[in-house]
Amino acid sequence: MAHKLGKYTYLTDAAPSVLAWGSVGSKKEAQGPLAPYFDLLNEDSTFGEQTWEKAESEMQKEAIAKALEKAGLSAPDLDCIFAGDLLNQCTGSTFGLRELGVPFLGLYGACSTMAEGLVLSAFLLDSGAMQKTAVITSSHFCSAERQYRFPLEYGGQRTPTSQWTATASGAAILGQNVSPPYIRAVCVGTIEDKGIKDQNNMGAAMAPAAFETLRRFFEDTGTNPDNYDLILTGDLGKVGSRLLDDLMQREGYHIGGKHSDCGLLLYDSNKQDVHAGGSGAGCCASVLCSYILPSIREGRLKNVLFIATGALLSPTSVQQGESIPSVAHLVHFSSLPN
Amino acid sequence: MAHKLGKYTYLTDAAPSVLAWGSVGSKKEAQGPLAPYFDLLNEDSTFGEQTWEKAESEMQKEAIAKALEKAGLSAPDLDCIFAGDLLNQCTGSTFGLRELGVPFLGLYGACSTMAEGLVLSAFLLDSGAMQKTAVITSSHFCSAERQYRFPLEYGGQRTPTSQWTATASGAAILGQNVSPPYIRAVCVGTIEDKGIKDQNNMGAAMAPAAFETLRRFFEDTGTNPDNYDLILTGDLGKVGSRLLDDLMQREGYHIGGKHSDCGLLLYDSNKQDVHAGGSGAGCCASVLCSYILPSIREGRLKNVLFIATGALLSPTSVQQGESIPSVAHLVHFSSLPN
Repeated sequence: MAHKLGKYTYLTDAAPSVLAWGSVGSKKEAQGPLAPYFDLLNEDSTFGEQTWEKAESEMQKEAIAKALEKAGLSAPDLDCIFAGDLLNQCTGSTFGLRELGVPFLGLYGACSTMAEGLVLSAFLLDSGAMQKTAVITSSHFCSAERQYRFPLEYGGQRTPTSQWTATASGAAILGQNVSPPYIRAVCVGTIEDKGIKDQNNMGAAMAPAAFETLRRFFEDTGTNPDNYDLILTGDLGKVGSRLLDDLMQREGYHIGGKHSDCGLLLYDSNKQDVHAGGSGAGCCASVLCSYILPSIREGRLKNVLFIATGALLSPTSVQQGESIPSVAHLVHFSSLPN
Repeated sequence: MAHKLGKYTYLTDAAPSVLAWGSVGSKKEAQGPLAPYFDLLNEDSTFGEQTWEKAESEMQKEAIAKALEKAGLSAPDLDCIFAGDLLNQCTGSTFGLRELGVPFLGLYGACSTMAEGLVLSAFLLDSGAMQKTAVITSSHFCSAERQYRFPLEYGGQRTPTSQWTATASGAAILGQNVSPPYIRAVCVGTIEDKGIKDQNNMGAAMAPAAFETLRRFFEDTGTNPDNYDLILTGDLGKVGSRLLDDLMQREGYHIGGKHSDCGLLLYDSNKQDVHAGGSGAGCCASVLCSYILPSIREGRLKNVLFIATGALLSPTSVQQGESIPSVAHLVHFSSLPN
C-alpha cells in the first residue's frame, strides 16, 4: 500500500505501471510539433458526429480503444475507469464510455482530471485492490468555446493571455508493476484561490495551485528540481509558467531549466495562433499519452513530475463576480521501479 | 487492503468506520418526516447568500463543519475530501470547500456522488494509505431548477413522474476501524442506458443501474435480501422504486419488504407536493447523514445496503435527443466490523 510522507505526499510501495496509452487529436494538433507522436489525428474535428459534444465523446471512445489495443487488453479486463471532462455534467465521458461496460468512477477536476485519475489509480493498484484501471479525459475547442465563452459563429476576439482549448483526448491503462513508466509517488492538491477573476487568464489563476503542490512535494520528499529530468505542468501556458517559475524561485527552487508545460509543447506558439498556449483537460492528457510516457518507457526521461492544474470555475461563478479557485495534483513517473 | 469478490464487489479487510456526519436542509426538508434528525434546518433557502449557487456552497460549508465538530476533528486532520454536486463544473463543492485547505478530489457522479465518495474513501482507508477522509455532496432546488429545467420565475408545471430536488447537503467523516457504522463492502457500478429519454422521469432512467449493481452484489457475495435489514436506494422515487422491485423480482430477488428509497423517506408524498419523490445529490446524502447512519451506530439497523444512483445526462445532451445513461454504486454498512 501507498504510505504517506509528510502531509500531502504518498509513496507507492509496489510502483504501479502505466501499461499503455492512447492519444487522439484534430487539425490544430496535427499542425503542432507533437503530431508524429499521436496515435490518431483526425483533420475533421466533428469526428463524423453531428454535434461538438458527440465529437468529444467519439474522441474518448477512440483514445480508450487505442490504449486497450496497445495493452493487448479488452474492456472487461479493466477493474474500473476514471474519467471526466470540461463539459457540463461531464457528458464527454459518460456518453463516450457508456458502451464499455466497465465500472465507472466519474471525476471533476477540470484540467487536472488526468492527474487526479492517475493519483486514484495509483492508490487502488498499489494496495492490490485492483489489477487494471484506466484513466481518460478530453476537451474540444468547439464544445468548450460555446459552453464557456461565446458561440463560435460570434467570432469573438481572444485576449493575449487566453489559451487555446485542445481538441484532444488521452487515455492511459494502468496495472501492477511490470514495466516502465512506474508511478513512484503522488501528491494530492488543495484548492488555491489568490483572487484572480479574469477567466481569460487561467494561467495566472492556476499557477498558485501548481506552486503549492510542487513546493509541498519537494518539502515532503526532501528532493529538489535537480532530482528530476522534467517538471511538466499542464496547462499553465506562457503566463502561468512564468508565474510558477517566479513563485518557486522565491522559495529557493530554480525549476527554470527543468520546467516545461503541456500547453507550450502541444502547439508551436510562434506559428500557430494559440496566444498564451494550449489548455483543456485533453491538452495535458494527450501530451502525456503521446510524447511523455513513451520517453519514460524508452529511458530518454528517467524521472518526471507531472502536475496537472485545474481551474474550478464555471461561467455562472464568473457572472456572479467570483474569483477562480484552482487545484493541482502531482504524479511522479519513473523509468525505474525503486 | 480491500479484496475483490466476483467481478464488481470488494470486501474491506479493516472495515473503515464512519466517524461522524452532518446534515443540512431547508424549508421543505424541515416540513418532512426526517426533520428531527437533521443537524441544521434553515427555513431561508438563500442561507444568507445572494445567489442560489452560493447558498448551495454555504450548505456544504455548514455540513462539513458540523460533521467535523461531531467527530472532534478539524479540517487539517483530514487526509482528503471527496466532493461533487450537480452544478455545472461542480461549483457547489469547489466554492463551498475552497477555504478548508484540505487535499481535494472532485467527483462527478450526479446523485450517485455520495456513494462514489464513500467507495473511494473505503479503498483509501482500508489500505491504510489514509487515516481520515471526508465525503460531501449537495443539491439545491433553486439552483437545479434553473440549470436543468426553467427559471423559477417561469413557473413551469411539473409532470407526475418528476422528482423534487432536495435543498440539502450531507457530509461524512471516515476513519480507521473504531466504531459503527463500518463499511464492509463496496460495489462499483457500470454505466447503464436503456434508452429512456424523458428527463422528467429520472427514476425510470436510473432503476436499471440500481438493478445491475444490486444484482451483481448479491451474485458476487452469494447473499440475498434476507441478509440485510434495509436496501436503501437514492433516489429512484416512486416510479423507479417500483421498477427496481420488479426487475429484481424477475431475477428471483424479493426486495419489496426490505427496500426503501431516500427520495421517498425525505418527504411525505401525501402531504408535500413532491410528485414522484425527492432527488438531487443532497437527497440521499442528507438522508444517510441524518437518519440512517445514527440508526446503524445505535444498532437499530445492523446491515444496510446503500445504493446511490446518478443520471449522467446534461441539458445539452437532452436537447441533442440523447437518452439518459445512469450509474449506481453500492456501500454495505454494518453495525459489526466483521
